[in-house]
Amino acid sequence: MTMNRAQDVPVATTLPQPYLLFLGDTTEAAFAKTAFGLRDWAGDRCIGEWSCAGATVTTGLTRLTPKEARARGARALVIGVANLGGVISESWMPSLIEALESGLDIISGMHTKLGDAPALKSVAERRGRRLIDVRTPPPNITIASGRKRSGKRLLTVGTDCALGKKYSALALARAFAARGIDVDFRATGQTGILIAGSGIPMDAVVADFEAGAAEMLSPDSPAQHWDVIEGQGSLFHPAYAGVSLGLLHGSQPDVIVVCHEPNRTHMVGHSGYSVPSIEETIELNLILGRRTNPAIRCAGISLNTSLLEAGAAADLLAREYARLGLPVADPMRGDGEFERLVDACLA
Amino acid sequence: MTMNRAQDVPVATTLPQPYLLFLGDTTEAAFAKTAFGLRDWAGDRCIGEWSCAGATVTTGLTRLTPKEARARGARALVIGVANLGGVISESWMPSLIEALESGLDIISGMHTKLGDAPALKSVAERRGRRLIDVRTPPPNITIASGRKRSGKRLLTVGTDCALGKKYSALALARAFAARGIDVDFRATGQTGILIAGSGIPMDAVVADFEAGAAEMLSPDSPAQHWDVIEGQGSLFHPAYAGVSLGLLHGSQPDVIVVCHEPNRTHMVGHSGYSVPSIEETIELNLILGRRTNPAIRCAGISLNTSLLEAGAAADLLAREYARLGLPVADPMRGDGEFERLVDACLA
Repeated sequence: MTMNRAQDVPVATTLPQPYLLFLGDTTEAAFAKTAFGLRDWAGDRCIGEWSCAGATVTTGLTRLTPKEARARGARALVIGVANLGGVISESWMPSLIEALESGLDIISGMHTKLGDAPALKSVAERRGRRLIDVRTPPPNITIASGRKRSGKRLLTVGTDCALGKKYSALALARAFAARGIDVDFRATGQTGILIAGSGIPMDAVVADFEAGAAEMLSPDSPAQHWDVIEGQGSLFHPAYAGVSLGLLHGSQPDVIVVCHEPNRTHMVGHSGYSVPSIEETIELNLILGRRTNPAIRCAGISLNTSLLEAGAAADLLAREYARLGLPVADPMRGDGEFERLVDACLA
Repeated sequence: MTMNRAQDVPVATTLPQPYLLFLGDTTEAAFAKTAFGLRDWAGDRCIGEWSCAGATVTTGLTRLTPKEARARGARALVIGVANLGGVISESWMPSLIEALESGLDIISGMHTKLGDAPALKSVAERRGRRLIDVRTPPPNITIASGRKRSGKRLLTVGTDCALGKKYSALALARAFAARGIDVDFRATGQTGILIAGSGIPMDAVVADFEAGAAEMLSPDSPAQHWDVIEGQGSLFHPAYAGVSLGLLHGSQPDVIVVCHEPNRTHMVGHSGYSVPSIEETIELNLILGRRTNPAIRCAGISLNTSLLEAGAAADLLAREYARLGLPVADPMRGDGEFERLVDACLA
């Protein structure tokens, strides 16, 4: 499996590893998806976790101070939490400075640039440490042409943010590879880029170039090659739908997999907005996606059942399969349903 | 009529006027919409036009060299043409340098920044002239909240780019004001900003903040106040649909007016893509717009009949009115149909 082909995609940067994962002072697991993603998909390169007083979320990795982590070989602290607006919280500053003083670089996927914080900048300069922002898009993005590209493409789409689009894409890419298929995982967000080592941070691209960036991310490839593209946001999200539509148009997917979290009733961070149904989400993505790929189809559903125990999850997957007439799987449980979803993607 | 309320909206900059309009070497009228817009809506502040050898498009204004224009009082040359990708053409450089040498500032709405051209930068510095980019968004945009705002909003939407969304919004704002209504024209593109003197260049905003910028552009206002918002792109455009969706969601319009050019069969600059029907465009905008304003409705159609003679245009407006059951008008012809469209917007 080639998880990336660095020559195709602008590499954000070569990142110093292994990592110490930083959880800030977060009390909401949905905001720590970067840390969870790194634990699950780059666990061999994560030495431990660290957080401020007040944090209640944990990845389950060993808790280490920056000094302890550095002694065990860590080379960078990765900010593993996000928040609305993507700003670096003032309350994190003492921890970040401690990391620099302990000899770690800092890697961030936030909107705010690390170097814009004078305190960090001066300590980093004094200590000879790097402040690395993986959300800076490549400079050479062009306007989308809409031209159909060769090769096959799958895009994970969602009913909301932060419910498994990246996990689903990683799991599908891994499953495709296990079947001997030539596949690339294409990262579109900070965590995916941290995991993959390349990609384009789609939400940081200037709006006019959004679909063009998506075209650049999955270039022409051999006819039997698959790009499995990490989705972003949701067409139903009051803040991020434009990102989702640009990514859908530019990716021109042959196949979509709809990602959903069955216990979620309202959009994360936007409680005035209900989560759309799976059927609505399929329909709207197909209506809009047909504009750049008339052959687009939905292969199935990826249900995030992490809040359910195993029996309840299995029951729900079976019920949803019967109701929707499409494969429904939770890739994190990696069962027979998931193989059926992989079959449907490749059909 | 208050065309803007500068205290509400970040002003790009205070622009030096009057203008000399520069048409580059363009041979396609659709690319010169900035120059036409300034002629029609800020004509009292346009001294003349200028272009390179090979240009075939004209605004009909007096042709003047930069030196002649300066002698007649012009203070800036405005780049009145656009092209795919928004780059400043190398072939324009001698003309732009001549303008600076003649004592004019240069104002640009292109993606490429004027100051990024070393030749322009050095001449401007030597001559003490300004290079002004109106496409730089304000720095303080936040993520959209999705919160319903007070006051009324109208958004012009389109079947394609460059067919009259700005003209229609300006004409509607002017007509609302003529009826004694408290109204603001809200500019979202470079020409609108040049005309209005404030606004946000929506296609230059980072994608994650697109809907947030639209929320900022039309803030809370008195219950009977109208914002008439200039649309951008088209939900059917393979490159720009994400911009259109972010603007639609963030504007949360009560009323849309669909803009269309009846002679156009394919999208400008994307000949592989057909122009959608008016009905499809109404339907998709209402489906997506309902997400942030369930009361959204389509008041009618603005047809750009500039390629038709008067009799054929009148016939077409009548036929489309009968076919669609909605007011259909060409605001540039300013006839009874247009007053009917205004009635429907305010109904």
